Order: sequence, then C-alpha cells, then structure tokens
Amino acid sequence: MFFEGAEKKLEIRLTPNMVSLRQQECGFWSTLVACANAEILSTIRNPACDAYLLSESSLFVWDDKILLLTCGNSTLVDAACHFINAVGVEHIAALCYQRKNEYQAQLQSTSFVDDIAQLRTLIPGKAFRVGHLDSHHHYLFCTDNLFCIDNQAMLSTETCLELMMYHIRGELADYLKLPTQTEQGIYQRLGLQQLFPDFQFDMHCFQPTGFSLNGIRGADYITLHITPSTGQGDSSYVSFETNLDLTVYPYPLVAQMIKLFMPSSWDLIRFNQPLITAGFPEHLCLAHGSIVTDQGCQIDFNHYQQPQTEALQPVFL
Amino acid sequence: MFFEGAEKKLEIRLTPNMVSLRQQECGFWSTLVACANAEILSTIRNPACDAYLLSESSLFVWDDKILLLTCGNSTLVDAACHFINAVGVEHIAALCYQRKNEYQAQLQSTSFVDDIAQLRTLIPGKAFRVGHLDSHHHYLFCTDNLFCIDNQAMLSTETCLELMMYHIRGELADYLKLPTQTEQGIYQRLGLQQLFPDFQFDMHCFQPTGFSLNGIRGADYITLHITPSTGQGDSSYVSFETNLDLTVYPYPLVAQMIKLFMPSSWDLIRFNQPLITAGFPEHLCLAHGSIVTDQGCQIDFNHYQQPQTEALQPVFL
Repeated sequence: MFFEGAEKKLEIRLTPNMVSLRQQECGFWSTLVACANAEILSTIRNPACDAYLLSESSLFVWDDKILLLTCGNSTLVDAACHFINAVGVEHIAALCYQRKNEYQAQLQSTSFVDDIAQLRTLIPGKAFRVGHLDSHHHYLFCTDNLFCIDNQAMLSTETCLELMMYHIRGELADYLKLPTQTEQGIYQRLGLQQLFPDFQFDMHCFQPTGFSLNGIRGADYITLHITPSTGQGDSSYVSFETNLDLTVYPYPLVAQMIKLFMPSSWDLIRFNQPLITAGFPEHLCLAHGSIVTDQGCQIDFNHYQQPQTEALQPVFL
Repeated sequence: MFFEGAEKKLEIRLTPNMVSLRQQECGFWSTLVACANAEILSTIRNPACDAYLLSESSLFVWDDKILLLTCGNSTLVDAACHFINAVGVEHIAALCYQRKNEYQAQLQSTSFVDDIAQLRTLIPGKAFRVGHLDSHHHYLFCTDNLFCIDNQAMLSTETCLELMMYHIRGELADYLKLPTQTEQGIYQRLGLQQLFPDFQFDMHCFQPTGFSLNGIRGADYITLHITPSTGQGDSSYVSFETNLDLTVYPYPLVAQMIKLFMPSSWDLIRFNQPLITAGFPEHLCLAHGSIVTDQGCQIDFNHYQQPQTEALQPVFL
C-alpha cells in the first residue's frame, strides 16, 4: 500500500536560437515521460507554457526549458538521458537534477549516487547533498557552466521555491483520506481561487486517494501534489512548488499552505528566494544550509518542525 | 568509504532446564556469528557471562540467554534463524529482533520487513515500528508469549538501555578520527575506570578508525561501538548499551556519554528503565513513543536534538 510521494526533479534549459520546444509533437513528450515510467493524463496551455499533468506528477514545457517532476518509484534519470540524447548534448545550456529524502529509499530502483553516475556519462556537473542522511536532506546535480555569460546571468536570477510537508493533520488532511473527495472539493478547501486568481488550473484526483494540480499564468507555474497516508503509519506527504517571485507576489502562499495542511514537519528549498516566515505557525528550525552554484544561483535549505514533542504511535507490521 | 554503524540486535532466551549455553563449544559461536557475516576477535569471561568482541560488534552469552549485536551490512536475521534451528524452536522462550533507522537503508541486503517475514517462517511474533520513516525510528519483533507465567514475570523486569548518538563533535570526536588513536587513549578519555570501576573490559581499535568495547561484571554488561565519520559528510555514530538498572547505578552514565561525544542528535530506547535526563546538555525532545509488549515489557523511545538550528555544510558527491 506504500506510495513514495517525494519527487525527483529535472530542469533543462536549451541553448539560445533553438526551435521552440513547444513545437515538438505530443509523442515526443509521451515518450519522454514514459522513460520515467509516467504517462500524460491531461494538458493545459497558454502562450508561454504547456503544462502536462502526469500519472506521477508534472511536466512543464517553455520555449527553451522543461521542468519534469516524478514521484513514486519513477526512473527520472532515464528521462534525463533520453532528452539529452534526443536534443544533443551540445544544445543543453544547463541541467539540474534533484532528489529529496525518501520515506523508503530502499524501495527505489536507483540511488542519487547511481543516477549521477549515469548522468555523468553524458554531461559533466557538480553534485552535492545538504542535510544529514538520518534527517531530511536534499540532493542536487547541476551541470558545469557549459555555455556563456548571458546564460549564467539568466540562471542566477531565476527563482523557485519548493515546500515539502510531512505528516499532515487536521480537517483538510482528514478530507483527503476520504474516497468521496472531489477535485472541486479540494480546490475550494485550498482556497486556490483566492491565492491564484489569474491562474489556469488542471487537477486530477487519483484512486483511492491522491491529488495533483498544475497552474499556469504566462511563464509562471505552480504545482501541488498530495500523497495522503495509506496503510499503516503516517507517511503522508504534500509538495508545493512555484517559480513566482515571492518578494512581490501579494499572497502569503507558503504560510497558507502550512496552515491548511498542518504538517508536523516541513522543508523549504529556495532558489534565489528570500526567507519569508511571516504567518508560519509556531515552529523550530532544526537545520539550515545554503550553497551558491557555479552559475551564481543561491540555494537555501531549511528543515522545520512543530515545537511540541511529537507523540509517536506504534505502527504494527 | 561508508560504513553503517547502526546495529541490528538479537536477544534470545531459552526455556528453563536446558544445558547452559556456555557449555557450547567455541565453534558453535563462530558459526553463529559467521551467519551474520561477522567473526570473533576476542573473548572475556566471568562466572556469569562470556563476552565476545566481534569484527562487527558484540556477542554476549549467559547460561540461558544470548545477545548478539551486528553493524555494517550484516545479516543478523540469518544468525537468528540458524540459532533457532540449532537449539530447536521448542526451546526458545522468547526472541526479540531489533533494527534502528540506518544512514543508508538502501545499502542493506534486507529490510526489517524482509527480516520478519523470514523469522515468521520459524516462530510467531508481533512486530512494530516507533517513529516516522523520515526521522529516527526503531523496529522491534518480539515473539508471542510462548512459554509460561514465570518467564513473563522475568522478562517484564529485565532492564536495558540503548543510547544512539549521531554526528559527534568536540575533542573526543576529533581524537577518534586520528590514525594515532589507541585503545588506552580512548579508554582514558571515556573515563571508563571511573564510570565502571568493577568491570572487566575488552577493547579493539579498527583500521583506519572505529572502536568497540565490551565490559562485564557478573551478569551485567556494557557495550560501546564508535563509528567515526569516514569520507564526506558526517555519518558518525556511537552506540552505548547496558542492562544495568540505572535507578540504582551510582554514576550518570548516559549524561556522561552525551557530554563526551557531544552528538547533534541522540535517541534513547529504554526497556523497563525510567527516564533520567539529569545532566543532559540543553536539548529538544523531538518525539516520544512507548509500548508495552505482551510479555509486560515497557519500551520507550525518545528522539533528542541540540536546541540550536544546525548549520549544514554541503557534501560534494
């Protein structure tokens, strides 16, 4: 009954002056996600971006960039290698491949170390881990500075925020366990209309539970994936990610998500984003690490927990 | 370069009126530990107990009981099955098999779930986990109440304390990384003479680093295993375990160990032991869980961390 919610993440930017990626036929993308053991469920488009909702998370395609997220026991590194070979390594301006701590790493078909060995047969890059192996941690592989100063300038100003929430509780968490949940029911309870008034959405409820959402507005995206706890023990997980610049966005997205899902612990990974904790519930910051990549991107990792001692219930096996 | 310090633990008590286990030939024990991929390095004895220092932790043998601890990628469950078959399942009064969260679970040859499936082909029992999979946690399998009320009474009063320390720091931690460390150097720095004045000790320094110690006094034992960090990233780990009744023992063992090793986080697992935190450095108790087994044994799990936000350094891979 166990399903690994934690996503692997692949971001690839092409060199300038290439044909737009959005000109690729649909078969190109279904083949790509099939390499990761995923399939396309539905698509939304706007003039800047195509957003695909997948059986295992999401794919976003811009003219010169893709973002592919896959959860479960997906083989995202195979999709990365397929893409590099399909477009030609000489056309890759930058590639980032990321994994987070998994609930059950031993059930994954490969480790991050295996994955980067495979990637490095095609493209050089630096890889690192932030966080201890016995706690929440975060792996990232970034290609070496392959291209030019312009590319570097562009990368160093791109923003992204990833919020990972563990062990969700409360009214919304209870609703998300119900077989009667609906897409509209979740949409309403999340207040998405209020938080993202100008966004176009695509949503999917999985059987028996689980929910995925993509939202786009021009080149901006949000993506939200909910893995409620299944079977015994609380391995619930919710991820939220956006490239919105939160220094100017008028709504307190992150604080609102944490208030709604009431996780007992949560992590933030920020790419060129300041730390805004206003509106967070009372918390401990257990750990913080940061790094600046060769491309000039500042990455910050924060691991938070509720301040009360958690009362653990035994899980019978 | 990675070595998994976290021990697997097997405790087996025989039914009464059996020939003393200490009458078994040495070959019996070397065969048993070989099943777990370990070997005997040295032995100490007293009238109540034989203590074997192993290449991968420790074996203690009393007249009617064994305690076998193995670390690394050992296959302790195979030793458990070998022992059950060797003495006959009808002579097993009680068996407990335990694993803790590992730094790299995906490098282990089996999971706890695999192990208990194997054990249950030979002997029935209940298994549970305390602690979330994304944080420190603890697995235990205990056989059903196989024998008699006397046995139950005996089990429910036996005490044991396990202390697991992660990410050690300070003077002692620095010394333990040196190739020039010696058994006597560690013994002195730990103040073992003062903490355990009546104990007989057996110690071993591993190459290039690592240290194991057994101590016995009558039927009482202590065992200490140090895995300093090797390679990149801090995956240091120190375990200390004893069956001393800490309500009457005159020295503050646990507080002293934590002060010496200065771990950034540590766990206590107590079997019929009260919680004594006097002398602990300032700390957070992140989680606590407890359970009473069918045999009447109260087991408590506490996960602690230093109160300061930990500053994480990236580990390059």
